[in-house]
Amino acid sequence: MSRIDLREKVLNENDRIAGELRERFARKNALVLNFISSPGAGKTALLEQTLRWFPKKLKAATLTGDIETENDAERIAPYGFPVKQITTGGACHLDARMVERGLDELGADEYDVLFIENIGNLVCPSSFDLGEEAKIVLLSVTEGDDKPFKYPSTFVRADLLIINKIDLAPYVDFDMMKARKAARKVNPNIEILELSCKTGDGIKEWVHWIQKKVHLKRKAIAS
Amino acid sequence: MSRIDLREKVLNENDRIAGELRERFARKNALVLNFISSPGAGKTALLEQTLRWFPKKLKAATLTGDIETENDAERIAPYGFPVKQITTGGACHLDARMVERGLDELGADEYDVLFIENIGNLVCPSSFDLGEEAKIVLLSVTEGDDKPFKYPSTFVRADLLIINKIDLAPYVDFDMMKARKAARKVNPNIEILELSCKTGDGIKEWVHWIQKKVHLKRKAIAS
Repeated sequence: MSRIDLREKVLNENDRIAGELRERFARKNALVLNFISSPGAGKTALLEQTLRWFPKKLKAATLTGDIETENDAERIAPYGFPVKQITTGGACHLDARMVERGLDELGADEYDVLFIENIGNLVCPSSFDLGEEAKIVLLSVTEGDDKPFKYPSTFVRADLLIINKIDLAPYVDFDMMKARKAARKVNPNIEILELSCKTGDGIKEWVHWIQKKVHLKRKAIAS
Repeated sequence: MSRIDLREKVLNENDRIAGELRERFARKNALVLNFISSPGAGKTALLEQTLRWFPKKLKAATLTGDIETENDAERIAPYGFPVKQITTGGACHLDARMVERGLDELGADEYDVLFIENIGNLVCPSSFDLGEEAKIVLLSVTEGDDKPFKYPSTFVRADLLIINKIDLAPYVDFDMMKARKAARKVNPNIEILELSCKTGDGIKEWVHWIQKKVHLKRKAIAS
């Protein structure tokens, strides 16, 4: 079997398990969001802010991926929602099988929104469907406004781009309009939010985005 | 053939070509440095500063990897040294075969130092030997001081850690001592330099590091 055939086989098997996960999430009407970014773009910080301001009427749960440490789960746990760390032991992305196992170990079966924090890697995670409803790509202003062109596979598959660390914009050469245009050129349908996990700017709009998604989901099911 | 067997085969084949590259570099006494980092950590900016202040007596050449664009080669070309863009068309890392082809297309056979800028990815590139003398990992202060623990595969194989964007340190929660300790815990032999490509702080020491490496290499060959 060639390298390309094997890659096909791996992705097909992943798609099969992701399909099962998608059915599982549908049965509980859960909104599942898969967060992808470079290392250090602020995925965990965003989850901290999100859980801090999470709507009282909704239940959240989190699976957080890392190659080696349990640090992220330890940061997220104090917010009082179920969280399970998935350590990949070297793998550069989460796959559907890891999410399946993580869910079994999460020990919580009731959630309206499941957050999946992928490995910090702007390339590989985008190829692996995790049964999510939407991929969300984070880009911090310190990374540069050219990244959508340079790492298109993630931007093209994302429903939402979150531009993070806007508090640092005055200190770096980041052209917000250029970044937005680049993202829209790669993916004309992508939504874009700007925020800062440090100052809290834009967090309200982000939590509102989640609520709107949950609402639309329920409306679609009811109709 | 299983997935793991195939990975072994791919890496063995890569090692074979990397061995040939290493002999080729040895024949011309060239110092070859492989730069690895997250997207946006400043690899291209560092190359710009390096070529700007490159010692007059030495010749440099650059291979710069990207998934899709030719932007990096365009940024580096004005400094007057040979440069060739390698676009991987989706692949998340450079491999030895790509470097071999890039060298053939570089059209320059005389260089004392060859810089190879890998794809922005803190995980996958570290597995692929490119025949280099040293891997250099860049970490920007905006990514956080915990990254050596979270992405150990790159830090464990690097000879030098360059901590970049120190001009942004006052605006982010980055503990320099914690980062240095984490890197040394993962790799006790790693050297560490701190610099800012924006202000130029630390660039002199970095260029000196290159000169010292070239000098040691020539001394070893002469003896």
